[in-house]
Amino acid sequence: MAKFFVTGGAGFIGSTFADSALEKGHDVVVYDNFETGLELFLTSSSINSSFKLIKGDIRDLSFLTESIKQSEPDWIVHLAANADIRQGLSRPKRDLEFNTLGTWNIAEASRLSNVKNILFSSTGSVYGEPAIFPTPETCSFPVQTSLYGASKIAGEGILSAYSAGYGINCVTFRFVSILGARYTHGHVFDFMKSLLKDSSRIDILGDGKQLKSYLHIKDLIKGLWTVIESKPTGYEIYNIGHDDTMTVDTSVSYITREMNIEPQRFYSGGTRGWIGDSPRIQLDCTKLKKLGWHYSYDLETSVKDTVRYLLENKSLFNEVD
Amino acid sequence: MAKFFVTGGAGFIGSTFADSALEKGHDVVVYDNFETGLELFLTSSSINSSFKLIKGDIRDLSFLTESIKQSEPDWIVHLAANADIRQGLSRPKRDLEFNTLGTWNIAEASRLSNVKNILFSSTGSVYGEPAIFPTPETCSFPVQTSLYGASKIAGEGILSAYSAGYGINCVTFRFVSILGARYTHGHVFDFMKSLLKDSSRIDILGDGKQLKSYLHIKDLIKGLWTVIESKPTGYEIYNIGHDDTMTVDTSVSYITREMNIEPQRFYSGGTRGWIGDSPRIQLDCTKLKKLGWHYSYDLETSVKDTVRYLLENKSLFNEVD
Repeated sequence: MAKFFVTGGAGFIGSTFADSALEKGHDVVVYDNFETGLELFLTSSSINSSFKLIKGDIRDLSFLTESIKQSEPDWIVHLAANADIRQGLSRPKRDLEFNTLGTWNIAEASRLSNVKNILFSSTGSVYGEPAIFPTPETCSFPVQTSLYGASKIAGEGILSAYSAGYGINCVTFRFVSILGARYTHGHVFDFMKSLLKDSSRIDILGDGKQLKSYLHIKDLIKGLWTVIESKPTGYEIYNIGHDDTMTVDTSVSYITREMNIEPQRFYSGGTRGWIGDSPRIQLDCTKLKKLGWHYSYDLETSVKDTVRYLLENKSLFNEVD
Repeated sequence: MAKFFVTGGAGFIGSTFADSALEKGHDVVVYDNFETGLELFLTSSSINSSFKLIKGDIRDLSFLTESIKQSEPDWIVHLAANADIRQGLSRPKRDLEFNTLGTWNIAEASRLSNVKNILFSSTGSVYGEPAIFPTPETCSFPVQTSLYGASKIAGEGILSAYSAGYGINCVTFRFVSILGARYTHGHVFDFMKSLLKDSSRIDILGDGKQLKSYLHIKDLIKGLWTVIESKPTGYEIYNIGHDDTMTVDTSVSYITREMNIEPQRFYSGGTRGWIGDSPRIQLDCTKLKKLGWHYSYDLETSVKDTVRYLLENKSLFNEVD
C-alpha cells in the first residue's frame, strides 16, 4: 500500500482519484484551497480512517513543503490548477501563478521532502494547433496558442528538469476534457447553467464545428492507475483521451435532448471558440494502450452522464463560480 | 528609425546589439540590473545622444512597465536572463525568477504599454537531447533536461500565447553559445580563469567529446537585424547557430594554443559535462538563411577572438563572478 498526496484533491478529478485510492486500500492526503474544490466531494472519503484533509494553497511553498514533509507520501498526484482556459486573456496572471509557479512549488517541495514519485495533469492544449491527428506525444515541437497551454508546458518543463536533475520519477498526463460525475467546469456546465435560466436559446462560441475529444472520469482514473501500477521511472509522458471526436454542435444536441428542451442556436462565428481555442483536439493514446489501458465509455454516454449528474445536483450551479 | 528597449543591455550580447542599433541610427534604451552587465560595455554608447540607460530589474514588473511606458519603444529586445545553465541544480529558483517570471513580466509590461514587437533570446537547450542533427525548429516535441532549458521554453510559451492573445509580434531566437568580444560567461571564460591561475592543468567536465556549436557575436547580431528588418508579424521562431560543431577538447586546444600553454588535461568523465548538459548541439538554421543571413566566422576564429579579447581585458576575470 502507498500514500498519495493529492493536490486539488477536493476537485472533480482529484476527489474521484482520492475515492479510488482509498477503495484500493491506499492512504490519501487531500491538499486543496477550496477555491473551486468542494467539501461535498469529500463526504464519503472523509469518514475513512486512511484519509486526511489539509486546507492549503499550492502557491504557498512553505506550507506546501511542511504539509508534504509531515505526510511523507510515496506519490504526489498534482491535479491542482487554474483550469479555466477561456479566461486566460482576461486574467493572465492566474495561469502563471497556479499552473507554472504552483507546479514549480510542487517540484521544489518534492525535492526538499525527498518525494520520489510525481503524477502531473497537463493538457492536450500544449499541442496548440498540431498538424497531425490523432496527435502523438512526440509530434512536432508545438507553438503555444493559449496562456493555459503555455502555463502547462512550463509546468512540464520544470518537472522534467527536476526529474533529470534530482532523480524524481515523474509521469505527465496530457488530458483531454474530462466528463462525468462531479464535473463542475467546462462547456457542458456553462451551457446547462445558461439553459437552466433560459431554455429558449443557446449561445455557442465559434461555429459549433470545433472537433473535441472527451473522456469519462472513470476511464481517466483507470488510466492513471494503469500507469501508477506500472511503477514508472524517470520522466514519462502519456496522452489520455478518446479515439472519437465530437463537434460542439453534437455535444449541444446530446445536452438539450437529455434536458428535454429545444433551444434556438446562436453562433459567435469563426472556427475557434475563443483566442487560443484549438479547432480540433484528438490525441494518439497508443503509448498508454500499450500498458493495457482502454476506455469503456463512448462520447455520447460521457455527455449524458454529465448532464444527468448536473440535473440531479443543480445546487452546484450556485456553488461554483 | 526605431526605438529599441534592450533588457540585459549592459551584457555581452545586449551591449553589442545596442552599439549596432546606435550605429544604424536607431534610439536605444538599455535596461539592466548590472548583476552581470558592466558599465564598461556602455562606454561608447553612453556618449551617444540617442542612448538612454535605465538601471532596473526585469523581476520588478511595476518599474519595468513604467520604464517601458516612458520609453515608448517600437521593439523590446529581451536579452536579460540567468544564463548560467550549469548552476541550475544548485540554485533552481534563479532560472525560474529571471527567465520564466522575467519573461512573463516582459510580456505583461508589453501588453500594458502597447508594445508591438518583441525579440526574445531563447536557447538551443530547449531541444534537450534531440534525435535529429542538425535540429530544426519543428523537430519532435522535446523533453527538457535542464532547468535552464525548462525556464526558456516556459518563456517561449508565454510569449507565443501573448502574441496570439494580444496581437503582439514576437520573434524567438534559439541561440547556440555565442563567442567574441565582451564575452564574459561560459566555458572559454571558465577555462581561462582557471588557466591564468594554474597553467599546468585543466579540468574538463565530461569526456571532452561533447559536440557544441558556437557563433561569433558579429554573426549573431547580423542575424538579429536580418529578422528585425524583415518586419516579422505574428509569432516566429528562428534557430541561430553555426553548421559546424567542435568538441570541447578541440576548443581547449585552441584556447591553450592561443594562451601559449600546454596544461595537462583531467576529465571528470561521462558523456555529459553536467546533469542537463546536451552531449551535442547543432541547429538547423535553414529558416534564417532563407531570409538571406549567413555567418562569416568559423569556429576556430570565434574561439581565438574570444581568447584574445579576454587576454587583453584580464580585469574582467575579477569583475565577473
